[in-house]
Amino acid sequence: MSDAPPAAPAADDLDAFRRHGHELIDWVADYLGGAERYPVLPSVAPGDVRRALPASAPEQGETYAAILDDFERVLVPALTHWNHPGFFGYFAITASAPGVLAELLSAALNQQAMLWRTSPAATELEEVALGWLRQLLGLPEAFEGVIYDTASISTLHALAAAREAIAPEVREHGMQALGGRALRVYGSEQAHSSVEKAVILLGLGQASLVKVPCDHEFRMRPELLRAAIETDRRAGAIPMAVVATVGTTSTTSVDPVAAIAEICDEQRLWLHVDAAYAGVTAMLPSCRSRFAGWEAASSIVVNPHKWLFTPFDLSAFYCRRMDVVRQAFSLVPPYLRASDGARNLMDTGVQLGRRFRALKLWMVLRHFGASGIRAHLEEHMRLARLFAGWVDAHPDMERLAPVPFSVVCFRAVPTQGPAAAGAPGSRWPDDAALDQLNERLLEAVNASGEVFLSSTRLHGRLVLRLAVGHLRTTEAHVTRAWQRVGEALAALTDEPAP
Amino acid sequence: MSDAPPAAPAADDLDAFRRHGHELIDWVADYLGGAERYPVLPSVAPGDVRRALPASAPEQGETYAAILDDFERVLVPALTHWNHPGFFGYFAITASAPGVLAELLSAALNQQAMLWRTSPAATELEEVALGWLRQLLGLPEAFEGVIYDTASISTLHALAAAREAIAPEVREHGMQALGGRALRVYGSEQAHSSVEKAVILLGLGQASLVKVPCDHEFRMRPELLRAAIETDRRAGAIPMAVVATVGTTSTTSVDPVAAIAEICDEQRLWLHVDAAYAGVTAMLPSCRSRFAGWEAASSIVVNPHKWLFTPFDLSAFYCRRMDVVRQAFSLVPPYLRASDGARNLMDTGVQLGRRFRALKLWMVLRHFGASGIRAHLEEHMRLARLFAGWVDAHPDMERLAPVPFSVVCFRAVPTQGPAAAGAPGSRWPDDAALDQLNERLLEAVNASGEVFLSSTRLHGRLVLRLAVGHLRTTEAHVTRAWQRVGEALAALTDEPAP
Repeated sequence: MSDAPPAAPAADDLDAFRRHGHELIDWVADYLGGAERYPVLPSVAPGDVRRALPASAPEQGETYAAILDDFERVLVPALTHWNHPGFFGYFAITASAPGVLAELLSAALNQQAMLWRTSPAATELEEVALGWLRQLLGLPEAFEGVIYDTASISTLHALAAAREAIAPEVREHGMQALGGRALRVYGSEQAHSSVEKAVILLGLGQASLVKVPCDHEFRMRPELLRAAIETDRRAGAIPMAVVATVGTTSTTSVDPVAAIAEICDEQRLWLHVDAAYAGVTAMLPSCRSRFAGWEAASSIVVNPHKWLFTPFDLSAFYCRRMDVVRQAFSLVPPYLRASDGARNLMDTGVQLGRRFRALKLWMVLRHFGASGIRAHLEEHMRLARLFAGWVDAHPDMERLAPVPFSVVCFRAVPTQGPAAAGAPGSRWPDDAALDQLNERLLEAVNASGEVFLSSTRLHGRLVLRLAVGHLRTTEAHVTRAWQRVGEALAALTDEPAP
Repeated sequence: MSDAPPAAPAADDLDAFRRHGHELIDWVADYLGGAERYPVLPSVAPGDVRRALPASAPEQGETYAAILDDFERVLVPALTHWNHPGFFGYFAITASAPGVLAELLSAALNQQAMLWRTSPAATELEEVALGWLRQLLGLPEAFEGVIYDTASISTLHALAAAREAIAPEVREHGMQALGGRALRVYGSEQAHSSVEKAVILLGLGQASLVKVPCDHEFRMRPELLRAAIETDRRAGAIPMAVVATVGTTSTTSVDPVAAIAEICDEQRLWLHVDAAYAGVTAMLPSCRSRFAGWEAASSIVVNPHKWLFTPFDLSAFYCRRMDVVRQAFSLVPPYLRASDGARNLMDTGVQLGRRFRALKLWMVLRHFGASGIRAHLEEHMRLARLFAGWVDAHPDMERLAPVPFSVVCFRAVPTQGPAAAGAPGSRWPDDAALDQLNERLLEAVNASGEVFLSSTRLHGRLVLRLAVGHLRTTEAHVTRAWQRVGEALAALTDEPAP
């Protein structure tokens, strides 16, 4: 049928893969157990990595040895070690061993779960793993789940579905079908920035997001939510959705979901609950009360890649009205038609291609078991409370927010020395010098390499955040963080260490 | 400072990780080299996987042995083997060995490249790897790159930026700021469904996408594009962007980019080039002419996870006006402020969290080298042309589209037997029986387990697609595909095999 084929180019060398794969498994095992040998934050300057690498791709292929040498030489010293047990910034996350093994398999299998037929295993394991997680979270079966990459994308789909629910003509005719009437979304002033990105993307405009004021514990005030909705209706706008947060990013505050759900029910609004970080604690009896009312939500996002020991990325989106999500996005081009009648995950979102992400969630849930996960979450919360207790007991420190989960917001307010600027006894000394002191305190602590804290602003003030969440973080690490803070503060204020 | 801590829960067991990690590296090596021992498509029915697994998560943790047993027993038999060299459906993709090793590392490192400081290595390697790829593609330095997960998300960002460029007031005030005037996007009738999902999401409405008719080779007709734009302007709509495709999904047809770019320049429209599949062939001198004019685009998407041997997901987005993308999306909440002045990738899109995807692209480019990649691409195109030649030479087969890259669209049109329904010599016999015959032909070929073809519709007719793109696909596999097609056709039409 054809002449003898010309010499085909060589495929990738699997003996070399095997050899270096074994080497890398050992490297990863050492890394996961020994990330403490690195400073949490690298000491590189912008441009260092770029300048250390060639400006162009090689013309000829290179050996794994050469590639992995550069990995160790150039990249490892420029990593921020999210796996370091002293990583207390943002939200601490974990690439747990079963999650890493699952990602190895998932990469090799290279499943594309767009249609059931393009990966029955990935399609159905997604249903199974999300069903398991749903039960652990105590959510009713009416919540159908789907996995997206990030909470940003989950929340985007929630608000797209809310738009579809209230104004289905927008799918075909666009926002101009509303005749100039504006849609409105409500979140607290502590809601995540992804809500703003979503309303911008959806064409609602950033101004469509009404930031409802919070109480002194950073929780949305439901009476002000109701008032805002009513004002908007009177002005001719169309209230569309409310985003309530269980575990806000700055302080992990908990919006009063039950009261908000009641308003959404009465006003017929889509309620999206952003529980990206704290949602996993719904599996703890000690935390259940914070989730009261969330079962009335239209949609909920919980991120296993945050506090469920699952390597990034895996965001679980649960929705009571997944038919509306499908209605908003389902589009089947001729090259993707299938006749098996199965549920196709590509109908549930904007992304056509879908990785086999369910595998890591499934392996993590099985490896640790529900009781193992609960024990880790409880321990992380105990460590945060311990730290909060030390802050509270210290005369030169103040805590800026309650600690419902595993994050402590605090700052130094020295009663003596050059930075003791506020009137004695004043809870909020109004002084830029205090901000500056805390900025320097943060830098000094992070420069230790043993600990990484991040910061936020509350009431206009710079605040330090300690977020516990890594699987290998123990009391010793939290103790060390406290020591570093104390030493750095002493050095800055010329006081003896606490 | 505290009492003796209570017994903390055990972290994940790294000895077990090491042991089973080595086992899985061997499994993956065997799999990558031996996917042919599985049928390409699994023989499972919807619900089989779900029913084979427990309905709830285990309360106690389980051993890796138990988990991996279920992986082999339940999941592997339900995989569609995208790594099988007989996978010719959709676009064939490859999880190459260096890509898999990179994903192992990336999972373990668990980098979150939202800010430079949260991963200098991932942030800068993204710049380096995309710079290498840009040079290989022959694109000027004016194109800044960013990695997204999928082409759906890349195209979404392109159109969001186009909206920002033409109507910056929409970011703050929403689509209603346009006073009822509709925005318009133009793509050929062969453009990808992600363009439609994007205009729906952005609030432009599905009707805002004008599908410009194609010529007989499925290429957008530029004179009709210009006419559509002018008609829309006269009607008071606002033309916003054109999506030109180099390598459409059904037939891999190539829109006349240079002519389209000229129109976009003259009309001041954002030109987005969707080269998700075929873009990598811009590195081949033999294909350069198909990309004439693409350097004038505002943005381009090329997916290394399609035809560059990179495990899913990795979509490269190049943009001449990345400042507009940032203008559309940049939002820095207080908990993410950084003062290092570095470029932060979170400013370039809706997704805040970002995996360390650049690592796999970098390792793939180094492992194969530019010349190795070129050789594989050339070989895949040679195999597709070989198959096309067999189709052309067969009296009972017809080819429905040119073969500019590695996809062949064909169908059976028997000249004898019960299905020979069209008038002899008619190129387009208008007969549902022919569709049915080809549907059965497709099913029979795919049932062999040795080969997987997908289908599309052209001119309303069912068409079979053979897409070459897997690293281990050789002439023997393409020959086998042709044999299976011939045998199946013979069985269906009671003719001797070709």
